[in-house]
Amino acid sequence: MTPPQSKNFHTANPEFEQAIDRSIPEFAAAQLSDEDKYFKNHKPPVYLPEIAVEVQDFVKYHLEHSHKRIALVTSGGTTVPLENNTVRFIDNFSAGTRGATSAEYFLENGYAVIFLHREFSLLPYSRHFSHSTNCFLDFMTEKDNKIQINDQFADEMLQVWRKYNEAKDTNSLLLIPFTTVNQYLYTLKEISENLHIMKSKALFYLAAAVSDFFIPQSRMPQHKIQSSATQDGELVIRLAQVPKFLSRLVENWAQGAMIISFKLETDNNILIQKAESALERYHHQLVIGNLLQTRKKEVVFVTPGHHQENWIRLTDQEINDNVEIESKMIPAVIKVHDDWIAKNDNNN
Amino acid sequence: MTPPQSKNFHTANPEFEQAIDRSIPEFAAAQLSDEDKYFKNHKPPVYLPEIAVEVQDFVKYHLEHSHKRIALVTSGGTTVPLENNTVRFIDNFSAGTRGATSAEYFLENGYAVIFLHREFSLLPYSRHFSHSTNCFLDFMTEKDNKIQINDQFADEMLQVWRKYNEAKDTNSLLLIPFTTVNQYLYTLKEISENLHIMKSKALFYLAAAVSDFFIPQSRMPQHKIQSSATQDGELVIRLAQVPKFLSRLVENWAQGAMIISFKLETDNNILIQKAESALERYHHQLVIGNLLQTRKKEVVFVTPGHHQENWIRLTDQEINDNVEIESKMIPAVIKVHDDWIAKNDNNN
Repeated sequence: MTPPQSKNFHTANPEFEQAIDRSIPEFAAAQLSDEDKYFKNHKPPVYLPEIAVEVQDFVKYHLEHSHKRIALVTSGGTTVPLENNTVRFIDNFSAGTRGATSAEYFLENGYAVIFLHREFSLLPYSRHFSHSTNCFLDFMTEKDNKIQINDQFADEMLQVWRKYNEAKDTNSLLLIPFTTVNQYLYTLKEISENLHIMKSKALFYLAAAVSDFFIPQSRMPQHKIQSSATQDGELVIRLAQVPKFLSRLVENWAQGAMIISFKLETDNNILIQKAESALERYHHQLVIGNLLQTRKKEVVFVTPGHHQENWIRLTDQEINDNVEIESKMIPAVIKVHDDWIAKNDNNN
Repeated sequence: MTPPQSKNFHTANPEFEQAIDRSIPEFAAAQLSDEDKYFKNHKPPVYLPEIAVEVQDFVKYHLEHSHKRIALVTSGGTTVPLENNTVRFIDNFSAGTRGATSAEYFLENGYAVIFLHREFSLLPYSRHFSHSTNCFLDFMTEKDNKIQINDQFADEMLQVWRKYNEAKDTNSLLLIPFTTVNQYLYTLKEISENLHIMKSKALFYLAAAVSDFFIPQSRMPQHKIQSSATQDGELVIRLAQVPKFLSRLVENWAQGAMIISFKLETDNNILIQKAESALERYHHQLVIGNLLQTRKKEVVFVTPGHHQENWIRLTDQEINDNVEIESKMIPAVIKVHDDWIAKNDNNN
């Protein structure tokens, strides 16, 4: 829904030309030893037990009562606090549009959804009205000394509210926030291990923009010296690679689940190759490739095997009608999930 | 207004103990030559002319019709895009609470407000309902096939909506967004120069969290090599100081205006000293000091001259009653502004 009186520009949009640094090589997949080292050297968030209980209750409810499949949708960017100065941090550009929109279509297609999202990024349903350049009070008006939804927006808002309420009434949507990459990794692991019991009926839809580089807690004291201002007033920051835990997720934390990762590029010529290389490295089931500049109009599904690529595109008519590409993506994802479940059932 | 079903924690809050790096020395104030160099070497945002027109119209309207004073309130954190990869950037922790709340009290006290804010950070009035951990659709309900504001929240929302509408109807609130520190600096300069005509009736309330370090556009090609991954997989980022343009604002861009800056610390023992040192360096009229851990309960006004400090505090009763400290701060700021205007009138 377009809010009234929008400006003609967004200051937050990145420039496509400079969006992705190709001078940085692909990292190796994380091994069991990397996992041990990371979780031994980094403290879990204090609130993690609270989240564990919420997830356990949610999984138990759907296993025993609704018998729904569960999709874990990750969304938004993780941050890396700069040591000794947590008011300054490295962030990843992501409003959370892909994740929040996809979550709605999973819900509409009968899934329960755990929405692991960057705090204050877009949420399913509320996304239609938040993150406007103006004020959401513009959707309201006063009549007979009462505040009301402006007639102009009331019908669409009612439709969205009903879907949101349906998700709440059926206990089908669990919102779990993160901010830092450390919070994200611990929470992803916690949720994955609690979803293990769902076996192939669990689906991981990893749309979050996870940091490539961070400052390990273990080297903070050493690092403090390096990061202070140098003689000519410069600040030097040394960052280490974040272990590529997708391999651990596939092989261990969520073994048997259907796992989907995303590949965002700006150069169409290398998109497929990058997606295939991710499948080879992590051995998961599906990479959804997309270009920063066309990501709302077309995506490509790349699956294991030689040159398995399947483009999903909006037609010009659909673009004019404001059709969301996720309304076509998610049913296609679910078909792949159907096959995955059937294949796993046959193996048992 | 507290949204329903809030979680007990926020993932986005920084840790107080590590919030501010004291190993970095104070920078010198920017000279005219620094200004020339910066604006010669960095491109203005393409939308700047659009903003210039909005600001000119706004200032003209209030000069000729409302005769209101104008407060420029800056709010939220600026970002520093990392070169060759604009999807990754350094950010400053700030939800924009101080700025958005203060803007409301300036409006209530008869000022017109230009609200220069980080895009998608908190806005005056809508702040009461956004940035909740849950969905703003929780404030709504359905009755007779119509969407309505839940009775529980309707009265308070009506009060907020009326104030917001009053600000709109009287053309008293102009929202201007920024994201990067370069956008912020260009826009601040543009607005300042257009406010010059207001003389001492203009007030600058600089509550934004502006980046200390950035990557100059001029050295991007050179820098690209330095920032690629090293042999052991590390990423090294070299940042230069952002020129301290507060001196240019005071001496040139906004000469004659009342200028207020903020000093955020975590150590009470150095707060006053840091505030006084800022006044000595920049020669402006007021520093508002606050500690990260108590900033919603107490602030200190530090003015030029020996040991001029004036604490503003909420009583326990006021804290219980959810009184906002800005409701006491802004009237106190306005008193200082009254004196500034009187002093300038006498000099003419």
